[in-house]
Amino acid sequence: MVNVGIIGGAGYTAGELLRILIWHPQANISFVQSTSHMGHPVSDVHRDLFGDTDLSFSEADYKAIDVLFICSGHGKTKLFLKENNLPEAVKIIDLSTDFRPKANEKGFVYGLPEINKAKIANADKIANPGCFATCIELGLLPLANESKLKEEVHVTAITGSTGAGQNPTSTSHFSWKNNNVSVYKAFTHQHLAEITETVLQLQPNFDKEINFIPVRGNFSRGIMATIYTDCDWSAEEAVEKYKTYYKNHPFVSISNISPDVKQVVNTNKCVLYLEKHGSKLMIISVIDNLLKGASGQAVQNMNLLFGMPEILGLGLKPVGF
Amino acid sequence: MVNVGIIGGAGYTAGELLRILIWHPQANISFVQSTSHMGHPVSDVHRDLFGDTDLSFSEADYKAIDVLFICSGHGKTKLFLKENNLPEAVKIIDLSTDFRPKANEKGFVYGLPEINKAKIANADKIANPGCFATCIELGLLPLANESKLKEEVHVTAITGSTGAGQNPTSTSHFSWKNNNVSVYKAFTHQHLAEITETVLQLQPNFDKEINFIPVRGNFSRGIMATIYTDCDWSAEEAVEKYKTYYKNHPFVSISNISPDVKQVVNTNKCVLYLEKHGSKLMIISVIDNLLKGASGQAVQNMNLLFGMPEILGLGLKPVGF
Amino acid sequence: MVNVGIIGGAGYTAGELLRILIWHPQANISFVQSTSHMGHPVSDVHRDLFGDTDLSFSEADYKAIDVLFICSGHGKTKLFLKENNLPEAVKIIDLSTDFRPKANEKGFVYGLPEINKAKIANADKIANPGCFATCIELGLLPLANESKLKEEVHVTAITGSTGAGQNPTSTSHFSWKNNNVSVYKAFTHQHLAEITETVLQLQPNFDKEINFIPVRGNFSRGIMATIYTDCDWSAEEAVEKYKTYYKNHPFVSISNISPDVKQVVNTNKCVLYLEKHGSKLMIISVIDNLLKGASGQAVQNMNLLFGMPEILGLGLKPVGF
Amino acid sequence: MVNVGIIGGAGYTAGELLRILIWHPQANISFVQSTSHMGHPVSDVHRDLFGDTDLSFSEADYKAIDVLFICSGHGKTKLFLKENNLPEAVKIIDLSTDFRPKANEKGFVYGLPEINKAKIANADKIANPGCFATCIELGLLPLANESKLKEEVHVTAITGSTGAGQNPTSTSHFSWKNNNVSVYKAFTHQHLAEITETVLQLQPNFDKEINFIPVRGNFSRGIMATIYTDCDWSAEEAVEKYKTYYKNHPFVSISNISPDVKQVVNTNKCVLYLEKHGSKLMIISVIDNLLKGASGQAVQNMNLLFGMPEILGLGLKPVGF
Repeated sequence: MVNVGIIGGAGYTAGELLRILIWHPQANISFVQSTSHMGHPVSDVHRDLFGDTDLSFSEADYKAIDVLFICSGHGKTKLFLKENNLPEAVKIIDLSTDFRPKANEKGFVYGLPEINKAKIANADKIANPGCFATCIELGLLPLANESKLKEEVHVTAITGSTGAGQNPTSTSHFSWKNNNVSVYKAFTHQHLAEITETVLQLQPNFDKEINFIPVRGNFSRGIMATIYTDCDWSAEEAVEKYKTYYKNHPFVSISNISPDVKQVVNTNKCVLYLEKHGSKLMIISVIDNLLKGASGQAVQNMNLLFGMPEILGLGLKPVGF
Repeated sequence: MVNVGIIGGAGYTAGELLRILIWHPQANISFVQSTSHMGHPVSDVHRDLFGDTDLSFSEADYKAIDVLFICSGHGKTKLFLKENNLPEAVKIIDLSTDFRPKANEKGFVYGLPEINKAKIANADKIANPGCFATCIELGLLPLANESKLKEEVHVTAITGSTGAGQNPTSTSHFSWKNNNVSVYKAFTHQHLAEITETVLQLQPNFDKEINFIPVRGNFSRGIMATIYTDCDWSAEEAVEKYKTYYKNHPFVSISNISPDVKQVVNTNKCVLYLEKHGSKLMIISVIDNLLKGASGQAVQNMNLLFGMPEILGLGLKPVGF
Repeated sequence: MVNVGIIGGAGYTAGELLRILIWHPQANISFVQSTSHMGHPVSDVHRDLFGDTDLSFSEADYKAIDVLFICSGHGKTKLFLKENNLPEAVKIIDLSTDFRPKANEKGFVYGLPEINKAKIANADKIANPGCFATCIELGLLPLANESKLKEEVHVTAITGSTGAGQNPTSTSHFSWKNNNVSVYKAFTHQHLAEITETVLQLQPNFDKEINFIPVRGNFSRGIMATIYTDCDWSAEEAVEKYKTYYKNHPFVSISNISPDVKQVVNTNKCVLYLEKHGSKLMIISVIDNLLKGASGQAVQNMNLLFGMPEILGLGLKPVGF
Repeated sequence: MVNVGIIGGAGYTAGELLRILIWHPQANISFVQSTSHMGHPVSDVHRDLFGDTDLSFSEADYKAIDVLFICSGHGKTKLFLKENNLPEAVKIIDLSTDFRPKANEKGFVYGLPEINKAKIANADKIANPGCFATCIELGLLPLANESKLKEEVHVTAITGSTGAGQNPTSTSHFSWKNNNVSVYKAFTHQHLAEITETVLQLQPNFDKEINFIPVRGNFSRGIMATIYTDCDWSAEEAVEKYKTYYKNHPFVSISNISPDVKQVVNTNKCVLYLEKHGSKLMIISVIDNLLKGASGQAVQNMNLLFGMPEILGLGLKPVGF
């Protein structure tokens, strides 16, 4: 049994961790820390957990745990680790961006099991990947793995509203967002750094641009990325290469039917789909941004860190509709 | 040409007024006041007006206008009228709740044309009805008119998100509200006062309860109220009575097909539908909360105040989908 | 290990059963029958199962199973049982309406564990309750249990689109249903029969009307019922009585916060909430129509039929958003 | 007053024409033909017109009209014109794809006023552009006009459900489409032909590919296209060039705020927005697919055909929310 602590327990990624860990057969939740909700039932904030747990938000007790999930928000993990002297034995899984770029140089392992599984198994500290980054990287890894990225890469990805967190703003207002889509941070999204770094890990000679247009979708969960680039593989070869690359990765599948984003919602899965048009290979990649794109992947990393089966506790019922 | 001023110009009801008045053949918008957006283009706030108008938010100039729409928010009109000495000639249409209950005693006319058309035509100050109130009252007027309300009235009404205004809150957050419904203020909604008062205007002996359960719907615009009560009219009689009552009211129609809320969205219409079950008469009433439930009705009142055709500028293209 | 067969495997309730049973620790899916999709992968129809299962639709083999889930659609189970001679040892869980009214007289047990748990444990054939019926009955059982239903009962319930099945029709068309609500079968819905029968099982002297207005909601999953009736319990007494009634029923909880329908989506839970207004007790009841309202309850019944823990395989991660 | 006939009157584009024409000050609807609904009120099919019109579907009477809108569906106009001998004086506006590619060779004018305004004014037969085509072409015209399209063009465009028509299918089913997005016809969409042809009309030397990925959005109305390509204009120059190009085109505006699709819903407007990133110019273009992308543009063409102001009857209240 792995003893788990969560800090920043009132946010979306913490809520999602709790939804998984409550039913995880080898996890014991030691504490869920939240400064603002201390003492209140966890289900007062994460209302869907009412009836599932009697946990309350409490102070952190780092001696009681084997692993700490840090859900404090971007920019806050660095500060937290400076101010808190954690026991050496406590492993860390950080869901913020703080240690993702150049993770190695900072003593972290970039927690994408589909490229770093062995390293993760031996790591102490995991920088859990970003949601867009996960979705797009999984679409590119088999190409980079054979140094096939030779021209610019074109990516448009549409994300659910939960990707923007729970802070109410004008662009998270239902009256505005309902039935609406819009572009933000085109060509400049912060995940481009970790995407490029991950591609370079497999294909060090990649020197073209990745053009990335993020779109705010009018749905709650999920990311669909459409990616295309020049590639000399035939459609059949491409499918074969992708299947081979992901053979030992239980959450990634290659579909021969064009996917929709909802088919992976509430699961830790990534579904990939390939089409060839002239010289261009198009890849569609879909994930749930809060699961494979955040908390599900964090639990996958926990499983690997503690030598448990990678899918333990992650056999999740899809929502389907 | 009627010269119009709007105060509280950045809110939802002001935006909706502008959407109508820009194309109204007999209205000239003299000013749109907003403390917080002074000097900025109106279309920076009401983005859908980009390309339709070059108006900017400005200070109020009460000498320039024939009518003032007050869109300042509930509780603020009283204060405003105390602090500002408006020219006597300026007519007032107030969209807040401030003067609705006991409007007469306060020098206002309750601006529901389907009961007070003649009074409105001669009024100086209009208390524009609430959205739920309008939807439910239009369902009850023909019954009250013949003193047929003899037992309790049962009402459930579901409203679009714009009914709650533009302030971002936890219950207006897209991630929460999307695909979600919930009840609020059951049996205690503030519109019950004006509904009861309006019913009593036609049927002074009504002394039963109106049970009203408001529901937050996961759509942007519209209200659907389902109402039932005991009534000794047959279905055919009821339809006849309703058609007679609304004969001279161009925005209210009696349908023989069960309505859906979207069929009136972006119009000033109210569609009513009747079914008889045993001793009970069920009435379904649908309106657009921002139009017949707020700004559309306000323009209807303006038309009446200035002796113009009631539907002028209100021949609105429905959104349909 | 329980060996399971499913007939009518391409519909919504069968898909939902599969989403649960694939991860159920004591269930083995022997076959999923579908006339129209014979031989094709189950995940070609239930796309969200891609990556989770390699099952294909096949012919039924009744000798291989311990329990048969019948998902053939209303009216078809009677015919099926006439035409097929099932081995006596095979237990049946029927998800259609066919055997619900007067289930006992037909050799079935009405499968609502919160009233019939002991009978279900000893049954051979289960008539799985309807979705509206489950949601409303769970709101009324504690009242009926103490013979407190003395006046008319008023119910409005709004349901997700999956309640209407997968057949594409004009009212299931996205362009119409999106951002839209409407009433159907007011006062005449077919579930009224089983609701009344269930109430009478606990309170045989109940002789008032249950007024029921069903509403089509613009969301995929979930039902929210608002119920009120006269009751002489105080608010505190009512909460106490409800908590006592459901003490041994793991899927029903009494909340002291007004619930929203999404908090139970993708779970087998029912959340109840109570308010007292004058002489009236209001009950809000929320469930997921495909889970507690159909396939989740069917698995709960399977667990009881085979002496397994009631919640086995039903510790489901909520979708939350 | 222009006398108007509509054939194929029960479909989405015909409904949208009616929503506009009912309030158009210079249009008189002579007939709305529908084979399947002959004799029934128009508002039985287009429910949102209930209360606005008493028109019924009837047979066509070509002698009574000045202009015929053909809304029969793709592939059917050719057949219709073969089988029906229209009076020479009747002008034709065809909303299908039948005469769009190589319109000139077939005696039609491609009805995009922003490139062909003068030709339209003198035409007899208009091939009304496709919805994606309109949205994308308006984003490219100022570039093509100065022969600035020198490299490949990258386009992703997301469309509302009404773009797919009213026929109920598995991908128009609410339970599937709600909260869902997916790709279709990537690189092969039929509108690529008319887009390329329109670009070539202004820049005959354009010989690069237009890569186009269409996405099905989970909203009812609207298209947002994001377009990028290499361009040596600075951001400021680009804005200036676009403003100059569209100076005399009342429905196209260049915004300096990134647009959202809902800001043009229920209007005939196109809003364009430009950003420069390195050597690439990104253009965002938003329209309402049923208005500027279909029936609104058809009325704009009618206005031009009959020498009326281009915006007559098209001063439409946006839905806003």
